[in-house]
Amino acid sequence: MPTRKRKAVYAGSFDPPTEGHMYMIREGSFLFDELVVAIGVNPDKRSLFTLEERLQLLRAVTRDFQNVSVSSFEARYLIDYAAREGARYILRGIRNASDFHYEQTMRNVNADRNSNVTTVFLVPPRELAEVSSSFVKGLVGPRGWKDFLKNMVPAPVHEALLKKFAGQKGGDDAEGAPEPGDPEG
Amino acid sequence: MPTRKRKAVYAGSFDPPTEGHMYMIREGSFLFDELVVAIGVNPDKRSLFTLEERLQLLRAVTRDFQNVSVSSFEARYLIDYAAREGARYILRGIRNASDFHYEQTMRNVNADRNSNVTTVFLVPPRELAEVSSSFVKGLVGPRGWKDFLKNMVPAPVHEALLKKFAGQKGGDDAEGAPEPGDPEG
Amino acid sequence: MPTRKRKAVYAGSFDPPTEGHMYMIREGSFLFDELVVAIGVNPDKRSLFTLEERLQLLRAVTRDFQNVSVSSFEARYLIDYAAREGARYILRGIRNASDFHYEQTMRNVNADRNSNVTTVFLVPPRELAEVSSSFVKGLVGPRGWKDFLKNMVPAPVHEALLKKFAGQKGGDDAEGAPEPGDPEG
Amino acid sequence: MPTRKRKAVYAGSFDPPTEGHMYMIREGSFLFDELVVAIGVNPDKRSLFTLEERLQLLRAVTRDFQNVSVSSFEARYLIDYAAREGARYILRGIRNASDFHYEQTMRNVNADRNSNVTTVFLVPPRELAEVSSSFVKGLVGPRGWKDFLKNMVPAPVHEALLKKFAGQKGGDDAEGAPEPGDPEG
Amino acid sequence: MPTRKRKAVYAGSFDPPTEGHMYMIREGSFLFDELVVAIGVNPDKRSLFTLEERLQLLRAVTRDFQNVSVSSFEARYLIDYAAREGARYILRGIRNASDFHYEQTMRNVNADRNSNVTTVFLVPPRELAEVSSSFVKGLVGPRGWKDFLKNMVPAPVHEALLKKFAGQKGGDDAEGAPEPGDPEG
Amino acid sequence: MPTRKRKAVYAGSFDPPTEGHMYMIREGSFLFDELVVAIGVNPDKRSLFTLEERLQLLRAVTRDFQNVSVSSFEARYLIDYAAREGARYILRGIRNASDFHYEQTMRNVNADRNSNVTTVFLVPPRELAEVSSSFVKGLVGPRGWKDFLKNMVPAPVHEALLKKFAGQKGGDDAEGAPEPGDPEG
Repeated sequence: MPTRKRKAVYAGSFDPPTEGHMYMIREGSFLFDELVVAIGVNPDKRSLFTLEERLQLLRAVTRDFQNVSVSSFEARYLIDYAAREGARYILRGIRNASDFHYEQTMRNVNADRNSNVTTVFLVPPRELAEVSSSFVKGLVGPRGWKDFLKNMVPAPVHEALLKKFAGQKGGDDAEGAPEPGDPEG
Repeated sequence: MPTRKRKAVYAGSFDPPTEGHMYMIREGSFLFDELVVAIGVNPDKRSLFTLEERLQLLRAVTRDFQNVSVSSFEARYLIDYAAREGARYILRGIRNASDFHYEQTMRNVNADRNSNVTTVFLVPPRELAEVSSSFVKGLVGPRGWKDFLKNMVPAPVHEALLKKFAGQKGGDDAEGAPEPGDPEG
Repeated sequence: MPTRKRKAVYAGSFDPPTEGHMYMIREGSFLFDELVVAIGVNPDKRSLFTLEERLQLLRAVTRDFQNVSVSSFEARYLIDYAAREGARYILRGIRNASDFHYEQTMRNVNADRNSNVTTVFLVPPRELAEVSSSFVKGLVGPRGWKDFLKNMVPAPVHEALLKKFAGQKGGDDAEGAPEPGDPEG
Repeated sequence: MPTRKRKAVYAGSFDPPTEGHMYMIREGSFLFDELVVAIGVNPDKRSLFTLEERLQLLRAVTRDFQNVSVSSFEARYLIDYAAREGARYILRGIRNASDFHYEQTMRNVNADRNSNVTTVFLVPPRELAEVSSSFVKGLVGPRGWKDFLKNMVPAPVHEALLKKFAGQKGGDDAEGAPEPGDPEG
Repeated sequence: MPTRKRKAVYAGSFDPPTEGHMYMIREGSFLFDELVVAIGVNPDKRSLFTLEERLQLLRAVTRDFQNVSVSSFEARYLIDYAAREGARYILRGIRNASDFHYEQTMRNVNADRNSNVTTVFLVPPRELAEVSSSFVKGLVGPRGWKDFLKNMVPAPVHEALLKKFAGQKGGDDAEGAPEPGDPEG
Repeated sequence: MPTRKRKAVYAGSFDPPTEGHMYMIREGSFLFDELVVAIGVNPDKRSLFTLEERLQLLRAVTRDFQNVSVSSFEARYLIDYAAREGARYILRGIRNASDFHYEQTMRNVNADRNSNVTTVFLVPPRELAEVSSSFVKGLVGPRGWKDFLKNMVPAPVHEALLKKFAGQKGGDDAEGAPEPGDPEG
């Protein structure tokens, strides 16, 4: 039996963390000896929550997992970051066929760059397969959104969303997106 | 045999209405006792036609359907809007596999929120499967676009497009998009 | 408002009827004034249950739906059968992207043959999206199958399966298929 | 400008040839200097038409194409057959996403084996995208099939099908498959 | 850090084991403390190699992996077998989008049955994504197959294939399948 | 045998040209008597390289192909441009299923507009299937990007990228995108 520790990196934007992410973190914490949840910072991309806010939210929601740490990285490829952290694994979620195509490409390109790091995948359960950060953000606004999002994000994230949009959206005179994404547009 | 009326909402951006939408409206008018064609207003999204213009276009193209009315809504989820209108059905079109994935997600999320409203789907015929509002808008510009779009949008929309781009695009000195969307970009 | 009745045909092999079929029948019974649930007989294809058994099962599980009748047809295309029955609609379910491709093809070919009959689609909820007759049959055998299938088929079908496989499979010395379908084979 | 001839092989079962195949042959005849239409014989697979019948049908339907020849091969991989015939190209059709996945795999495996032979693809027009040999065969039987198939296969194939099923199917007392393929089975 | 052992089951038909399977076993051996490679016996399905032959082949190709054992099971669902073996994990490979759809379904159905067992996925590298047991078997026959398969299966499997088809296929007078699968049939 | 020349247009944004484009150009140069590589100018879309820069890069990388010329067009549809250039063919690449759906739509719409121009497709080999202009641009930034991109673009493009981002990205204090695209956003 191997004695070395199995360490993995689970990276993303986490803008904000969702219950879909929580599934990954929970299972990743069981599957690996150490799990680094890392925010990949993309300076060219606008985010709803600042890096600092997202780090705080991730720390809040991972508090109970002894072997999970929270971090961030920028100006590095994920595969290089993982290797540098001494992680032999990258953990990724696949929610649907479109995710799968992207993940297969990245897994191949990453293995070309560093064949010592293996990408391991989990598929979230049915309800969570539909929950992404952008899906959640797209639901903010219309009447009832506060209630609607309750099961899609962990409690600290729910509070952060309420605070961020306080007085802005979803009140009695709210104006908001009727639907996340609209493929007929 | 049930005596209650079957009412449905067919919502979208309709920016602008296309022959694809007309197929849905025509069939929806037959399938249901009442059909509400409703523009979902998304204040964060820029549109080519104003809400007022789109309402007028929809009214013009649905004039001959006795049981079809035109409306708009904002700051509400489609599922809530449908329920509030007393509609037991949401009508949606599926043109391709990518549409299908999105529609399946929305159908599930909506049923979680209100299980009394059922989503009913139609699949447009071959030629119309390729016609969406954004596809149509992407074709505006290059020489010959006026003619090219003729079979893709109803006459009032065609006129509205000509007026909107008069003197701007597609003249002898026109500059425009060579192709809608470019996956190689 | 139209006064004519809306009649639809929902056809399949129903070998045996599943909870996925029940969703379609229940919703079809609401959506249409009359729904004919029809077994399409394919003499070249072996079935687990005989035509007579399947008719009896369908009658048992549709007993409570006033506007649903059960029938069968052979030596006719579904589209021709529907037209002959005076049905303006064919009702079909789409469970996944692979279903969608097949259904889109059939919808197009059928519309070419008879443009007066429209195909209407429903997408079953998450759990039922996975339940098909062949999936259910593939699960018969291993220890615990009787219990496993309970939520996948209506009670009369469950009993019929138990009777059909009595003493044969799933007993203490059972031998059976470990898994339905095996894409690695 | 190159002076050498461009030769291609278009292989398949052609059991029987369809209008989908005719599109490929017609375009292939224009695109290449020489096109070999070749039946790949698979002794383990039962066919409706014998090899000799299929060769005769292919010869009949390609009569007007000066640079098209008809042949067959067995006990060889297509890529090896093409190379042996001095063909630098394999011609293949892609009708849908499922075809695409298979063709991409074969193209890669073939290029591994012989990088001097390039696979070139055509996508048939909308109506023909739905027509395959097995689709056509699945439609034989129900009342009206003779008429239904008329636009899907070239005339000599239509006659051959009528002769093959004379007195057997599609008469007034016909029994037949109601639908090709049934994903709900 | 958890002290309990992580045990996984990697099940399949392994008829025969391929280099695709070897990738899974190698990575699974690193990722888990214990890996059981288990042949799921399906008495209704014909196999090329007998159960005993497949067990021997698996033992031969896993000889060097200290924490890998080989086994078989029948008359049980994989999820039940895994639980009974004390495995908290099922290991599965996803080669393409079609695999993904099947695996997502099974993962969901299995989690419904036993939420204590988690399915973990790996995606094989580019070349192996195309290699399955049935693909390999489909390539047997035409001239050159012995050479062609060399990189697709481990050496003991290659020898076993040669022995099984000795004098039968691929000799100078061989007759064989020209191509694995033929979507145009 | 036909004596007329076969001329094709291969159009795109080429912002910048990649090794994926090079595969298409190389094969297109063999397959056709004349190949026009044409930049479709879209004035509404921002590009990394100016039109003039892209023309220069394309000229540099196609220098060795005698029958390949470089050009650009705007205010015209690709199909009209091809016809006007006297090209009977449009050459397109398909890298994955998502590409395929788009290409099938465009091929149909183009054939509706001008049935004399046929679209011919090539599928790039495994490694290149993942390389697009936007993928390449998304990789610019993090440490090591200069090296990482070396096999993805031809040498003149590599130099042009280095020059464009000199002092800006990828230095020791670089800040950059950790990953191209992020489906979890």
